[in-house]
Amino acid sequence: MKTRRLLAILEYDGTDFEGFQIQKRRRTVQGELERALHAITGEKIRVIGAGRTDSGVHAAGMGAHFDTAWKRTLQVLHKALNAVLPTDIAVQSLIEVPPDFSARYSAKSRAYRYTILNQTTRSPLAKRYALCISEPLDTDAMDAAAQSLIGQRDFGAFGSPPRGDNTVREMYRAQVRRDGERVLIDLEANAFLYRMVRRIVGTLLLVGKGALSVGEFHAVLEKQRRAGESVPPQGLCLVAVKYELATEPH
Amino acid sequence: MKTRRLLAILEYDGTDFEGFQIQKRRRTVQGELERALHAITGEKIRVIGAGRTDSGVHAAGMGAHFDTAWKRTLQVLHKALNAVLPTDIAVQSLIEVPPDFSARYSAKSRAYRYTILNQTTRSPLAKRYALCISEPLDTDAMDAAAQSLIGQRDFGAFGSPPRGDNTVREMYRAQVRRDGERVLIDLEANAFLYRMVRRIVGTLLLVGKGALSVGEFHAVLEKQRRAGESVPPQGLCLVAVKYELATEPH
Repeated sequence: MKTRRLLAILEYDGTDFEGFQIQKRRRTVQGELERALHAITGEKIRVIGAGRTDSGVHAAGMGAHFDTAWKRTLQVLHKALNAVLPTDIAVQSLIEVPPDFSARYSAKSRAYRYTILNQTTRSPLAKRYALCISEPLDTDAMDAAAQSLIGQRDFGAFGSPPRGDNTVREMYRAQVRRDGERVLIDLEANAFLYRMVRRIVGTLLLVGKGALSVGEFHAVLEKQRRAGESVPPQGLCLVAVKYELATEPH
Repeated sequence: MKTRRLLAILEYDGTDFEGFQIQKRRRTVQGELERALHAITGEKIRVIGAGRTDSGVHAAGMGAHFDTAWKRTLQVLHKALNAVLPTDIAVQSLIEVPPDFSARYSAKSRAYRYTILNQTTRSPLAKRYALCISEPLDTDAMDAAAQSLIGQRDFGAFGSPPRGDNTVREMYRAQVRRDGERVLIDLEANAFLYRMVRRIVGTLLLVGKGALSVGEFHAVLEKQRRAGESVPPQGLCLVAVKYELATEPH
């Protein structure tokens, strides 16, 4: 049976998922997507994601590819998926890609955003998508510390590799900025280690609170000091996975 | 027993409430607030809100007053309330007001915002706080129509009065603007009729979709045409209730 390979860009609210990757008897994004594809096509389809978001982490632009014998237009499949998928997952775009394309290995970069609400009282309207920090944060110091992350570096201080792989990654962008009461931390790299974003954010928060200097943050990166604790998942969002394609997925 | 009157500014996520006003055997904002006040003070306290938000409507700045014999500082009561209240309600500020102050009758204006996400696919990350509309919307026409709402007018076309009261209200601000894929509708008036904001938004949407001209919108206001349907509650937020006070509540 002739199949074609498709790339889906997914948005999901991670609150009620135990992460992206399929697990038995647990609600996962991959599991819901494979179930929807089976319901629509009748095929047993395996989905390959660009990576694995942890339990509670959100995504605005996760990439995932799969092979299908689907014969009708992609527009019909796209609409059917959004009709069948639960309301906390949606397919934002669906395109055909070459048979050797991989949502994981063809990805040029992953961009994450961590959102902090920096105000004294907790916020019922923001808590689902942000971490509330009541102490004042020095975002200029946090941004200065973040600059030392840019470039090809060993990030072993901030995370573990998937399967004994090396811990060198290339960071393209690292920025901390204030937008009213929000503090936005943007990180973009070719790939990330397990828990790396949340451990970097936890360590940047020590800088923001004055518990760690910019120089000491650099020492953490050099493994001369221990990193801060990982921050909770609700503030984290996988904003985009970038691919080089003739047709843009968005 | 000597009591003092306090004004609380409340933020809440309306998703899991059956509105603000207390009702037997239903989860309401007023009910939760009175329960928390009783747990902390031991007093049976009646709370008076600036108005009643419907089931599912959010608030970033609802005003509510109450009388209490509380003797310790307001800071202690404020912290205790935020510790005892469920995570979907928070007290943003708490101040003492004169004994003749009323959260309802002393309010100078109420400001509401209705948020629309105007894109072709549904959005899991936005659906809790916005209405998704896939058809293109002419926001310039919507804004032009909204201008005819400004001033002291009979808004009977868009809502019913509370208890046979008159339907004249004064609109101070009416604006429709686009911010990326979001369309923000801001309305501020001295007071609003039941369902008035959601019926105005429903009618403005007809203008945005080209089903009603700006002139025809004006005819609706003049009761020469019927208003559009009321829109769902999740896009609506009571942003602020404004008071004239020596001390600012924020």
